[in-house]
Amino acid sequence: MATFPTSKEGFIYSPDAGLHPGLATEGAIRPLTSFASASSARPFDTIVIGAGYAGLTAARDLTLAGQKVLLLDARDRIGGRTWTSQVDGEKYEMGGTWIHWQMGFVWREITRYGLERRLKVTPNAEFADYAFNKTTFNGKVLQEPFVPNFQMCEDAFKRFVDVDGQGGATVIAVPTQVVAGQFVDDRLVDKYDRMSIADRIAEVRAKNICSERELAFLVPWFVLSWGARPENASMLELIKWARHGENSFALLADNQFADGQSHFAKCFFDEALETGNLAYSLETVVRKVVDRHGSVEVVTDKGSFKANKVVSTLPSNVAAKVEEAFSKQHVGQGHKIHSRVAAPQLRSGVWNAWNEDPSDPVELAAAFGDQTLKDGTVAVVAFGGGNSVGNQPSSDPTKIKRWLATVDPELSEHYLSSVWHEWVADPYAQGHWCMYGPRYYTSYFKELQKPHGNVEWASADWADGWKSFIDGAIEQGSKAAYRITREWRRPPQQARL
Amino acid sequence: MATFPTSKEGFIYSPDAGLHPGLATEGAIRPLTSFASASSARPFDTIVIGAGYAGLTAARDLTLAGQKVLLLDARDRIGGRTWTSQVDGEKYEMGGTWIHWQMGFVWREITRYGLERRLKVTPNAEFADYAFNKTTFNGKVLQEPFVPNFQMCEDAFKRFVDVDGQGGATVIAVPTQVVAGQFVDDRLVDKYDRMSIADRIAEVRAKNICSERELAFLVPWFVLSWGARPENASMLELIKWARHGENSFALLADNQFADGQSHFAKCFFDEALETGNLAYSLETVVRKVVDRHGSVEVVTDKGSFKANKVVSTLPSNVAAKVEEAFSKQHVGQGHKIHSRVAAPQLRSGVWNAWNEDPSDPVELAAAFGDQTLKDGTVAVVAFGGGNSVGNQPSSDPTKIKRWLATVDPELSEHYLSSVWHEWVADPYAQGHWCMYGPRYYTSYFKELQKPHGNVEWASADWADGWKSFIDGAIEQGSKAAYRITREWRRPPQQARL
Repeated sequence: MATFPTSKEGFIYSPDAGLHPGLATEGAIRPLTSFASASSARPFDTIVIGAGYAGLTAARDLTLAGQKVLLLDARDRIGGRTWTSQVDGEKYEMGGTWIHWQMGFVWREITRYGLERRLKVTPNAEFADYAFNKTTFNGKVLQEPFVPNFQMCEDAFKRFVDVDGQGGATVIAVPTQVVAGQFVDDRLVDKYDRMSIADRIAEVRAKNICSERELAFLVPWFVLSWGARPENASMLELIKWARHGENSFALLADNQFADGQSHFAKCFFDEALETGNLAYSLETVVRKVVDRHGSVEVVTDKGSFKANKVVSTLPSNVAAKVEEAFSKQHVGQGHKIHSRVAAPQLRSGVWNAWNEDPSDPVELAAAFGDQTLKDGTVAVVAFGGGNSVGNQPSSDPTKIKRWLATVDPELSEHYLSSVWHEWVADPYAQGHWCMYGPRYYTSYFKELQKPHGNVEWASADWADGWKSFIDGAIEQGSKAAYRITREWRRPPQQARL
Repeated sequence: MATFPTSKEGFIYSPDAGLHPGLATEGAIRPLTSFASASSARPFDTIVIGAGYAGLTAARDLTLAGQKVLLLDARDRIGGRTWTSQVDGEKYEMGGTWIHWQMGFVWREITRYGLERRLKVTPNAEFADYAFNKTTFNGKVLQEPFVPNFQMCEDAFKRFVDVDGQGGATVIAVPTQVVAGQFVDDRLVDKYDRMSIADRIAEVRAKNICSERELAFLVPWFVLSWGARPENASMLELIKWARHGENSFALLADNQFADGQSHFAKCFFDEALETGNLAYSLETVVRKVVDRHGSVEVVTDKGSFKANKVVSTLPSNVAAKVEEAFSKQHVGQGHKIHSRVAAPQLRSGVWNAWNEDPSDPVELAAAFGDQTLKDGTVAVVAFGGGNSVGNQPSSDPTKIKRWLATVDPELSEHYLSSVWHEWVADPYAQGHWCMYGPRYYTSYFKELQKPHGNVEWASADWADGWKSFIDGAIEQGSKAAYRITREWRRPPQQARL
């Protein structure tokens, strides 16, 4: 097992050893910069701000095309909101995780880098199949077999999203066109963008579209997905998800990387480095981006850099600080916590927990068995919840065990330790994957996608396709690099005079 | 409407004007070569044989990476087995047509080139929805409403492919890994590769898995898809298709390009040209590829060219002539014929026709309304059938009307004219999209994918993912270019001494 450098990011905790920040990861690039000092840096064709997948893709495509590129990131590692920690020889996905062959941009890269034969598929040889260990919804506890219930979830999900008798196809004909494009019906888009998932739950109840038992399984899954309460989740976004996957509930969580996301991210980085066209500087915080006289200056805590173009991949919650147009934060404010439990049978566990009463602070909305570790213990990954702002575990890590007890006492009984990243408290993320509240799409999406002078804004947060997924980040990086390269190869006539 | 050059390929026929070969297309590149004579050609890093999507992708990626590339094609146009003819201002897809956002490689390119807003989605504003006009199966005629029947087809299809009670997931866990990879169970793969679709039909009948009525709709669709009789179609390939799309029957035919496939192909070509690194020569027939002393010579009817690497994208049926390993032809031997009919209501038509008795020569297995033309007539596209080798329409185009009459007399009553490409008679294709018969996967797939010295074989015909689709061609071109570029950037140590 390779030994990787330690990032300052992430936490590990166990009752015996206590809390420790910083975890090893293949994404920690050393040395932190490719040049001795800022003053020695040459002028660049393009500066890419952010080394998550959007930035890595843009930097790779631009350097492959022959541009001289500088890649900047505030963190001491690449990968942005996606990275893999390594603890005692075990890998944990700290943020973005899931990949699927129906996600075009990411699958292209996976097969291009030959990683399609290094997958973990769920379920796998480790265990037969999942079981719903416990579902707690509005104070009621259900304990039921998984296989028929999973089919029930599939069916109930289809009914839940079927707002038009055509699975949402009249609202979103092509899921890569939501508020702009050829097939957009402004009236319907506006209607469903005003509707929250809580509004739809009320409608579904009023019209008996789904039973309470079905909602007990669906609603916590919505909370997990948005990292937000259903009142703060956009129904339009749910319809878009459904349309992407032909209304299948299953496909969003089928495959992970055996070698971890950070290994995948490193493939982009290494390919860019090999061109000889990439300079990079990690732990470099961007203070200001000044676009004038046809070039852009990027002012950082390590000095200023100039280029013809900038690709900014800052998440929308961070960009809020940079430009006033990004003033409304997205709602993805949940936990993701891996916990080791000394109970091999929990590998098959699936748990749901939610209470619609906002006075009941349900921190973890869902959990499932994620991997069996070499020592025979099981890692369960738990997500929450939209109640968790300002309630991060590092302030008192003993609360993790208490939170797990509310999901299922069996989890806390066998509790050993946890690893996690506090995305909500992370100054460079300020949330996990980006999820929209009601009226975000219709108010901001077009503006976010617009080019702004010589600055391209590229982020999964406003991807056309799998928005908020790794796929969307790669899409955005690809598109930004494509536009810049085309313009670069075809200089305007006046520039030639 | 732009006027495009005329290719020698394709046919147009009407009873009044008679038969004429040659159709205009955006894919016809003029001039035919980018250099005055072969002797003036510089040495190349890579020669790409074939300007279909695999070759266009390889040439584009390699030129973007800085390689000097020569692109050769025997035809007078780019696009290979996919091209769009333009007749009286109307566009017809002569070969490959369908695209979907669940096909990763092609969707990346569509969004990269900004074409995701130039789609035709089915159904669209032109007509409300499809109707099954007529289904003829084993001599029995069914005329039934479409919407419930379509759902019936979806359900019946799921049962037909569900050989293991898990939708085929135990046979093919990940659809990009069939005979090689991490999740391959050789025993099951072998079992279903020996099974033809006809064998499965017999099993489905014996076990009452599908009704005769359901089979009447499904079987002609299999014949259309394979361009072959069910005895000659591999059940393993059908399971792979089903797994790709989460067992949805619908997704394979949702979207076309408003501007035609040839416009899309031209985007790749133009991007490669703009790098300044692309030379090309159309109407140039490759005679021999000689790989020795670490470089490759490509002997053509226009002279010889040398390069360090060759990417050959010849379809497997053509490659059969070049290398003995490609000795078994694939079974995709059907028709694709567009016919204008003076009956606007047929825009919604869907027809199926098949007879399991091989003595009944059913030439057209399926047809559907494809577009309403500017003059109010409707273009119906018809496919067949696996009986059609040596029975091409150009020898006697009046038979098209007779064939249509066997599908539905309404089609021949209103018949006006046809356009088509004879893929089976085409020396550079020898078949349409590539479909495997039983035992092809287990016998040939690994060999086809192997690198052969300095020659990379790249074709949709042996893609890992959407094999036989445009997506698979782009996949193969991307992978070949990636492997060549990585090796090119990292010269072996001995080369440096």
